[in-house]
Amino acid sequence: MREDAKTPQRHAERMAKKQRIMQERIARADKDQGVLLVLTGPGKGKSSSGFGMLARALGHGMKVGVVQFIKGAFSTGEEAFFRDLPNVDYHVMGEGYTWDTQDRQRDVAAAEAAWAVARQMLRDESYHLVLLDELNIALRYEYLDLDTVLDDLQNRPPLQHAVVTGRYAPKELIELADTVTEMKVVKHAFKDQGVRAQKGVEL
Amino acid sequence: MREDAKTPQRHAERMAKKQRIMQERIARADKDQGVLLVLTGPGKGKSSSGFGMLARALGHGMKVGVVQFIKGAFSTGEEAFFRDLPNVDYHVMGEGYTWDTQDRQRDVAAAEAAWAVARQMLRDESYHLVLLDELNIALRYEYLDLDTVLDDLQNRPPLQHAVVTGRYAPKELIELADTVTEMKVVKHAFKDQGVRAQKGVEL
Repeated sequence: MREDAKTPQRHAERMAKKQRIMQERIARADKDQGVLLVLTGPGKGKSSSGFGMLARALGHGMKVGVVQFIKGAFSTGEEAFFRDLPNVDYHVMGEGYTWDTQDRQRDVAAAEAAWAVARQMLRDESYHLVLLDELNIALRYEYLDLDTVLDDLQNRPPLQHAVVTGRYAPKELIELADTVTEMKVVKHAFKDQGVRAQKGVEL
Repeated sequence: MREDAKTPQRHAERMAKKQRIMQERIARADKDQGVLLVLTGPGKGKSSSGFGMLARALGHGMKVGVVQFIKGAFSTGEEAFFRDLPNVDYHVMGEGYTWDTQDRQRDVAAAEAAWAVARQMLRDESYHLVLLDELNIALRYEYLDLDTVLDDLQNRPPLQHAVVTGRYAPKELIELADTVTEMKVVKHAFKDQGVRAQKGVEL
């Protein structure tokens, strides 16, 4: 196929076919609705993808909300960048990385307080997109009640998008979601090659 | 394991162990180097992840360059958002979606002109991060010479990060990369449920 691609005529035919398929698919897909998108799996790029969608929404003049469910020495770049922009409401859970606190009660209280902020956003249709960064980790450790979270996501305004990131998305969340991407590690410099996490790409 | 997590003492022990493992890993990983990161696979979130890294780098006060190798009616949100920010140089390949042109010669010329811009960035250490959005598509169609692209990536300044997105990353690029994530589709609203691509999350 890649050899064929070099013949101008074959190329034009193939591209014309692709164009028809895309046009037909777009014509069939005619519903507007808020999308619940889950980015999970062990590979890099889950949170950054959520923040890229935030940027894209802001580029369309939308109002967005962010709640980060894990806070630590890491993840400072995106906070510095987005926090004070117009049309952005940004909330960070009050505690450090969960493995820095070693106090389950405090983690649960912090997660619940963060969810209260998320819930307000999920009930307010003025937010076009709500990013719940690393929510899956809070669910994994059962810091939050899964049914409460699922109910609040399901009952959000019909045109509001919600983006949930973090490893170990629970299967009930995957069932509820419209679009789910799993990030697979093919290679990881930080783990495999003694390179520390690099500002910009990872922090 | 999730049941155990509910016992405060077991929780504290497990978190303390995680903390030690993370600290040891961070201590071992002590190299600073520019990371070549590839985001590929069929799942959603490749470009948005690249743009999230861009935001993160900007949050650290870094200077960034972007070259988009596919341009069409789509992908307008991130361009609107990032294009005119300080510390951002933004270049979009001159032609429409490849299946809208049906002219291989013109596509090749446009890709080569875009690569000339990318190459300048990859030779200039004042750029801390260079995002080559959908480059893999241009390589897939052989609009660009793979060896030239690999050479330019390999010879970039040692502390510069490069992020390459797009389906079908060639295996030679995966070999050269430090970190590679493959995005897998678990579910896709646009394809499966007749929902059109939604502004903010997809456009």
